[in-house]
Amino acid sequence: MKLGAEHLDDLALGSVFLATGGGGDPHVPKLLTAEVLKRTGPVDLIAPEDLPDDAFVAAIGNVGAPTVSLELLPSDDEALIALEAFEKQMGRTLDAVISFEIGGGNSLIPIMAAASRGIPVVDGDGMGRALPEAQMMTYAIRGIPSTPALACDYARNVTLFTTKGTDVYERHIRALAMSSGGMITTVEHGMTGATVKQALIPGTVSFALKLGSFLRENRGQAPALLAPLQALFADSIYGECRLIHTGKVVDKSTRIVGGFDVGNTIVEGFDAGTAPVEIDIKNEYLLARRGEQVLASVPDLIIIVDYETSEPINAERLRYGQRIAIFAIGCPEFYRKPDALNAVSPRHFGFDLDYIPLEQLPY
Amino acid sequence: MKLGAEHLDDLALGSVFLATGGGGDPHVPKLLTAEVLKRTGPVDLIAPEDLPDDAFVAAIGNVGAPTVSLELLPSDDEALIALEAFEKQMGRTLDAVISFEIGGGNSLIPIMAAASRGIPVVDGDGMGRALPEAQMMTYAIRGIPSTPALACDYARNVTLFTTKGTDVYERHIRALAMSSGGMITTVEHGMTGATVKQALIPGTVSFALKLGSFLRENRGQAPALLAPLQALFADSIYGECRLIHTGKVVDKSTRIVGGFDVGNTIVEGFDAGTAPVEIDIKNEYLLARRGEQVLASVPDLIIIVDYETSEPINAERLRYGQRIAIFAIGCPEFYRKPDALNAVSPRHFGFDLDYIPLEQLPY
Repeated sequence: MKLGAEHLDDLALGSVFLATGGGGDPHVPKLLTAEVLKRTGPVDLIAPEDLPDDAFVAAIGNVGAPTVSLELLPSDDEALIALEAFEKQMGRTLDAVISFEIGGGNSLIPIMAAASRGIPVVDGDGMGRALPEAQMMTYAIRGIPSTPALACDYARNVTLFTTKGTDVYERHIRALAMSSGGMITTVEHGMTGATVKQALIPGTVSFALKLGSFLRENRGQAPALLAPLQALFADSIYGECRLIHTGKVVDKSTRIVGGFDVGNTIVEGFDAGTAPVEIDIKNEYLLARRGEQVLASVPDLIIIVDYETSEPINAERLRYGQRIAIFAIGCPEFYRKPDALNAVSPRHFGFDLDYIPLEQLPY
Repeated sequence: MKLGAEHLDDLALGSVFLATGGGGDPHVPKLLTAEVLKRTGPVDLIAPEDLPDDAFVAAIGNVGAPTVSLELLPSDDEALIALEAFEKQMGRTLDAVISFEIGGGNSLIPIMAAASRGIPVVDGDGMGRALPEAQMMTYAIRGIPSTPALACDYARNVTLFTTKGTDVYERHIRALAMSSGGMITTVEHGMTGATVKQALIPGTVSFALKLGSFLRENRGQAPALLAPLQALFADSIYGECRLIHTGKVVDKSTRIVGGFDVGNTIVEGFDAGTAPVEIDIKNEYLLARRGEQVLASVPDLIIIVDYETSEPINAERLRYGQRIAIFAIGCPEFYRKPDALNAVSPRHFGFDLDYIPLEQLPY
């Protein structure tokens, strides 16, 4: 299909839902992408199976603390500068780009770059959601080298990384992001079409679009949306969809630690008989607990939406007093296999917990 | 002249003296450089005036917190990896290298690299001493772009920086050093022979060698060395030489802050009637005060030597209980001009003080 400016509202809305609190604020990226698409015309959203095996593809997106995305505004050329520097370094032009993760900002950055460059965007991503670190991407988990990788910051400073291993790469780009105001754009994981097909979470861009369209057309109280959302997710790569809590935000605190937004939120139940739910945050909503009871944990998706409108709320916009609902959704199967859990289980975020799939948890 | 393994002890000794506490520990770089020189034969130390105007030269050295240089040991190929990546990026081979600064480590790294590569080292450097930040180098002060610059870390990860301005470059390499264990090797400030001649502090390598030879041959109590040291420095690009204090280290504390060793030391006088001297440290000894009275400040040189042997002591090796002497020496004229003081005056290190040249201070 063709992605035009008219799709961006839905894509951003659905992407923020799937991004589980992270992925960046969509507002400015949406304005910038719309502007670029008006100039260039729509971009091809290419199904992974239509990608030639010998195509050259790279992943592109923003890296940093999402709170920064509200203040250090992106521009329309950082992605293009990084992309062209990447092509120059590789001595090869790109046939398509793909996103790191589904997110308010990070679903749109690849479209902006692809439009500027006149190439397609692959329908899929490297997380099926948003996650905070590079080694948590499907591409890294599948062993695709993250470098050579190019980074561009708000002042158009360009950095080329060549590292042994994505853990080191993650440390280096995080350090650069921190020393560049908190946010950079990177182009990384150069790979062939054949490799992309083995490594991506497929169809997530078109699914985010469909989900966004559903949320826009069915604006209303969250509990009423549970059944239709379950129907929507039943026909997807995601697992079970649950409404795990409704209530009011009585505490929310994050700080930038090591280049990430780290903190938590406490949500009192509307019903006085329901104990509050606490959610731990590292860019994304990672762990939802009622007292000691885990309700959902990474890599499964935890989504906070406005109670009245069901509009998803990113962690950097979550505030004291908001009336919200919390959904939990099983992650794509990719992330439930041992090689992926080696990168994204709750222990990798510092929680003394093994991963229990959502379907096996009470609520 | 030819620099061989037999020169390294004197060069290191003189360099640690001129490095005013910083510049890195020479022990391992000396062993590595001797090993390389044994394999390659001696290196040409080329006088700046003998450098062809169209020669291609770059500055090379280690960046980080000197305390780290005692534990994260360098190897003999980091400099060469960075240098070859630099040449590849520039599409041009180097005709010579020059050091960032005179220092225990940083006088030797360029020799090791030059020997491995079979090219000369320029007799001079970019500081005439050691200073903690890239924008404090003569090359940066003269407006020579610091990038494209290549960095290599202990694990052979390679990073290419292209930044607008050396302030940003400094921030980026510092962040990389911090995320790479505390120390990296960089090749930067690619320039022509004609440019080098306008920008360097000349003759500092051969002067460090001469000074080291003097210190080795005249091992003895510091006060006895004052007059001959004054004679030695009178015939140099440096200014007045003073012995400003003798006593015992009663406090020494540094922490790694932002990738630098930051702290201070207090030196009680041997004579009970003499108030203690405090020295502020940021990698280097920056400011010596007795009470409120400034005795010497950056960019002038503050040197701590062992009282009995006059062997210079780097900040990372300074310890409680050491009996020491403190020398102060006027910096090269380059650093007393407004454009240089804009980068290296005491205010640029956070001290609420204007620079007063050593000769105008009481002691």
